[in-house]
Amino acid sequence: MTDAATKAAGAGKGARPARRGEAGEPGTAGASSTVRFKPSGRKVRAAAGVSLLDAAAAAGVEIEAPCGGQGRCGRCKVKLRSGDAERRPTPFLRAEEIADGVALACQTYVSGDVEVVVHKRALGKVRPTGHAAAKPEALPVSCDWRRNPAVDTVVVDMDPPSLLDNTSDLDRLRRELSRQHGINEVRAELTILGTLARALREADWKVAVTLEMRDWVYEAYLPPRLLDIRPADGPLGNYGLAVDIGTTSVVAYLVDFDTAQVVDTASAYNRQIECGEDVISRIIFSQRGAGLLRLQRLILETINELIDELTERTAVRQHDIHEVACAGNTTMTHLLLGLDPKYVREEPYIPTITVAPKLVGAELGLHVNPQARVHCLPSVGSYVGGDITAGVISSGLYTSDRLTLFIDIGTNGEIVLGTKDWLIACACSAGPAFEGGGVGHGMRASSGAIEDVWVNATTFEPTFRTVDNAPVLGICGSGLIDLLGELFITGVIDKSGHIDLSLDTPRVRQGQRGPEYVVAWESDTGIGHDVTITETDIENLLRAKAAIYAGYSVLCRSVGVELADVAQILIGGAFGQYINVEKAIRIGLLPDLPTERFHFLGNTSALGAYTTLVCVSCRHDVIDVAGKMTYLELSADNSFMDEYMSALFLPHTHLDTFPSVKALLDGLNAGGGKHAAAGHTDRRDETP
Amino acid sequence: MTDAATKAAGAGKGARPARRGEAGEPGTAGASSTVRFKPSGRKVRAAAGVSLLDAAAAAGVEIEAPCGGQGRCGRCKVKLRSGDAERRPTPFLRAEEIADGVALACQTYVSGDVEVVVHKRALGKVRPTGHAAAKPEALPVSCDWRRNPAVDTVVVDMDPPSLLDNTSDLDRLRRELSRQHGINEVRAELTILGTLARALREADWKVAVTLEMRDWVYEAYLPPRLLDIRPADGPLGNYGLAVDIGTTSVVAYLVDFDTAQVVDTASAYNRQIECGEDVISRIIFSQRGAGLLRLQRLILETINELIDELTERTAVRQHDIHEVACAGNTTMTHLLLGLDPKYVREEPYIPTITVAPKLVGAELGLHVNPQARVHCLPSVGSYVGGDITAGVISSGLYTSDRLTLFIDIGTNGEIVLGTKDWLIACACSAGPAFEGGGVGHGMRASSGAIEDVWVNATTFEPTFRTVDNAPVLGICGSGLIDLLGELFITGVIDKSGHIDLSLDTPRVRQGQRGPEYVVAWESDTGIGHDVTITETDIENLLRAKAAIYAGYSVLCRSVGVELADVAQILIGGAFGQYINVEKAIRIGLLPDLPTERFHFLGNTSALGAYTTLVCVSCRHDVIDVAGKMTYLELSADNSFMDEYMSALFLPHTHLDTFPSVKALLDGLNAGGGKHAAAGHTDRRDETP
Repeated sequence: MTDAATKAAGAGKGARPARRGEAGEPGTAGASSTVRFKPSGRKVRAAAGVSLLDAAAAAGVEIEAPCGGQGRCGRCKVKLRSGDAERRPTPFLRAEEIADGVALACQTYVSGDVEVVVHKRALGKVRPTGHAAAKPEALPVSCDWRRNPAVDTVVVDMDPPSLLDNTSDLDRLRRELSRQHGINEVRAELTILGTLARALREADWKVAVTLEMRDWVYEAYLPPRLLDIRPADGPLGNYGLAVDIGTTSVVAYLVDFDTAQVVDTASAYNRQIECGEDVISRIIFSQRGAGLLRLQRLILETINELIDELTERTAVRQHDIHEVACAGNTTMTHLLLGLDPKYVREEPYIPTITVAPKLVGAELGLHVNPQARVHCLPSVGSYVGGDITAGVISSGLYTSDRLTLFIDIGTNGEIVLGTKDWLIACACSAGPAFEGGGVGHGMRASSGAIEDVWVNATTFEPTFRTVDNAPVLGICGSGLIDLLGELFITGVIDKSGHIDLSLDTPRVRQGQRGPEYVVAWESDTGIGHDVTITETDIENLLRAKAAIYAGYSVLCRSVGVELADVAQILIGGAFGQYINVEKAIRIGLLPDLPTERFHFLGNTSALGAYTTLVCVSCRHDVIDVAGKMTYLELSADNSFMDEYMSALFLPHTHLDTFPSVKALLDGLNAGGGKHAAAGHTDRRDETP
Repeated sequence: MTDAATKAAGAGKGARPARRGEAGEPGTAGASSTVRFKPSGRKVRAAAGVSLLDAAAAAGVEIEAPCGGQGRCGRCKVKLRSGDAERRPTPFLRAEEIADGVALACQTYVSGDVEVVVHKRALGKVRPTGHAAAKPEALPVSCDWRRNPAVDTVVVDMDPPSLLDNTSDLDRLRRELSRQHGINEVRAELTILGTLARALREADWKVAVTLEMRDWVYEAYLPPRLLDIRPADGPLGNYGLAVDIGTTSVVAYLVDFDTAQVVDTASAYNRQIECGEDVISRIIFSQRGAGLLRLQRLILETINELIDELTERTAVRQHDIHEVACAGNTTMTHLLLGLDPKYVREEPYIPTITVAPKLVGAELGLHVNPQARVHCLPSVGSYVGGDITAGVISSGLYTSDRLTLFIDIGTNGEIVLGTKDWLIACACSAGPAFEGGGVGHGMRASSGAIEDVWVNATTFEPTFRTVDNAPVLGICGSGLIDLLGELFITGVIDKSGHIDLSLDTPRVRQGQRGPEYVVAWESDTGIGHDVTITETDIENLLRAKAAIYAGYSVLCRSVGVELADVAQILIGGAFGQYINVEKAIRIGLLPDLPTERFHFLGNTSALGAYTTLVCVSCRHDVIDVAGKMTYLELSADNSFMDEYMSALFLPHTHLDTFPSVKALLDGLNAGGGKHAAAGHTDRRDETP
């Protein structure tokens, strides 16, 4: 046991250094200790009271901290090799770890020179198999984009300059674009001007000129902008990139502008996950030292890796990607642009922007043509972002005559209600339960995740299917919805989510973390122990579904319509496409409406990015949509908490709200003979 | 004597390695030797045949090479300490230097591993005393700029956001700008958005908003652009910077936008001088390795040093400099922007641009507000640049009813002829003689330079004045004009510039470099030897003045006007203000017209930058002026060479072209008794 570990271990509860908070940022005045990181060998001067996580950020050493450094995830373990540091007590370290000098970087504070060993846990290049982007052969674009292309290429054949015709290169090109194509007053930025002289001469004055013909937002009336100059007799690829920047996954479509076809797709985890799994954790992380810069770099690296993968596979030149459209929630968009999201998190939840400024690829360092315009789909507010306006555009909701509910289920449930004439939106913090967070054996929909479950009403034995039919590693969101519904219907849990330990099955038991149901025995898993769901897990799931239910209920009430009046329910988001409607209704996540009213649209965020990429008028539409959408702040709405509390049951406090579930339960009870189902009828109907 | 020196010294004439020219750039394939530079310790891999100058550039080691690496100046001396390198013979090294391993970096080529000692000769922060920028108290701006300011500041008092008024920070600011000031659709770029959230909150929602109200060129109709957000109760400085980027000197005016007054000025040598003294040398330098980047960095460093000096002296915050206007010749503008000037030098002399693209301070790394727009005054062609359009604007020539000739005398003589209805311009390569180049004891107009000279017609003894009355270091341009005229009038030289060695004075003698006239004996100088002017120096001066005379003569003829019809001659440029008209006419540099038609305007380039900085309509005017000005390419004009040849005499082959000089000579001859003058009368009238 090292000195540091002894000292740290001896620091009991309340031993948190008083100086913390007063201490400056690492490297500022008052810095007095040296923190060395192994194995990188990097070091930094830090004031007493600075956390090792902050010191690491200042030194450029990356430490994974999914909870954003709040001491809530236990993932930022490091080892103190020598020197002085003070550790706050944490439930995430075992006594032998503490004795061995292990510490949580975010909960350990510099009190003298210290040496810290960081073992990087690589996030790796995991592909979310279950959510892999489909390759849409012909995506629906309702408008006539071909008559109004964003990017176009024309061939210009010039006379070389002479002493008697010695106009500048740019003016010569402009003159001939006007003469030969009627394209006037072309704009050119510095980056392309740096290559112009050589490009014209190497092509022997016969060039293919790629132009951004229409500029977005308030500069729509600007003259065309020079994007690319290539020899007219060479290859003339003309591509775009549509990117869905999810908090968890990032999906990219490579689009051929000449055909509007998606030629390939790729997806990867958002590398920002190492700084926090959800939006709030990342905002917290962004407030530390170089946190914002690191988050921006990580998302850009993620996108660039996808571009590299796509262009390598398709042999498309990165220089031939002439435009990029990104759809992401408001925080993702802020982080992409390097804008501080601090006030997105703090009441009253104000973003810096809803419509992003004009940028080109070079400004962000994207692996595309440096002149390529990068669009971000506009947000409505801090919690209704570009992913949602993308959904409204790609779903056609904004052109519909019928009352439509659009639901994007994720860490945040975003909900839009409206017609072509009006739109209202809200966001409810569902938590990460449906994405596998806050659930002991929850996981993302990748290989080994249970995605479908059925429970026998008599034996309570489950039958399930995993992604890739691999040995069980955990349960993903769709699996959790299934499981919850099945456990409820079969009486394993009651309407409050309590497990009936009296059942005659080894599947229910009192576990280390309280009552639990065993979904898979150790022998069926690839993780060496049973995969279970606990009452705590179920509570988290109930809170998630209750938040979403309360969200659309309040939204309907706010405009005076009944849920039953909704003519269609569009389910968007990467997660939505894997939900079983019937089972989602059974737990009260989706409203109890006829199945035919539900439509699963897949990754509406990526589709919206694609739509605005290939269709200039859709770009104007999405700005209009964002501008006219009313944002209902649920935390300012008195009825939200009532709705939420009522929805914390299966399927709802008032079973009449879910007539199809009531009928199912009645049927099961009426059938009789099923011990479990019968035995729980009364409890199910109890009002708590 | 080291091995390298032995080998190099042994490399005789013609020993230039055959591989040169075939060799790749340093660091590319085929690189096989290591070049180490002392004292920096930097090293680089370079292929055989690469010059040490190129290798140094690749290694980031700066070596002064005023001729651009052509082997013509002898300034890039280095010392070979060990290893292999092959030296071309050069007249700039003495035998003992060669023996000691000294070499010219540009004339020495890698042939194996080599270690090179570079002794940096600091250019230092020399202030061109004689050309120091005057501090104009109230510069003439004819238009009513106050009614159309480029940059304006308004105060906005906002309600803080709440849950029920949760629009984004940018939209809130826009809304209040519109409500409180009627300013709509304000544009904001990413840089300022990054500071917006904090700026609004730190100012407690009461802010002073600085806006670029009018955008230049084809985006003149764009909405205002956000430049700065400051607390409304803090200091609200609003400044601009006008910069004259001369090939030799850079001059900056700090301008208070609120009063349009120049609050301070500063000037310094253009630090690019270390890469070449004239435009052509710098273009040649720009073609080596990282040459272009280095030239761009050097001019930006020069400007930043001037900004630092100005802001330190005036206590103006650099962040409060909200706009920058730069006037420079076409090559200087290309180098400032990092655009390759290669084709400016090669026939048919084509620049990439004449009108610079829109830039902000951050893009160039200028020490001003990162959002500050940086304007460059437009060029007409490769050799009529933004310094000349600046002159046309600031002189008012473009608004004049009278036939006007504008002459900017420098390394290039740029000449504009016209009225408010038409403008024609040309450029003639005068060479650097009037700036002290190509003249043995020539120098810039700094301390110790002879600037006025008179020669006694009987004794041939000179009387002179030096800048700062310091001991003689050399002769500057105005001194050379004086001297040439005096020597001619007194018969020391004839009309061809030949020195009369038969004169009875020790001042004329056969020197090491041929016949010469001693202007100052060693004892009067600060350099330890006599200051002289040789026949070779005089030839260079005759060529310079002949080029300028031929320029304006051809320009007049091309539009069918006589020189005598010119109503006013405006002399611009930093150098122009120090010329004595009478003596300039005497040598045939300026046309023989009544003195009252000449006007010296001072630094018209800096004045033009200032004018466009404070006056938005002048910005449009200068673009119009550049667009409508006809550029006459002298090398494509048949009559130019005839005019030039005829002007290679004092004052001209045809003395009748200079009646006032003829009268003066006649007077001197008629006066009689003056040995020298009389003795040379016949020769002066000879036609060669």
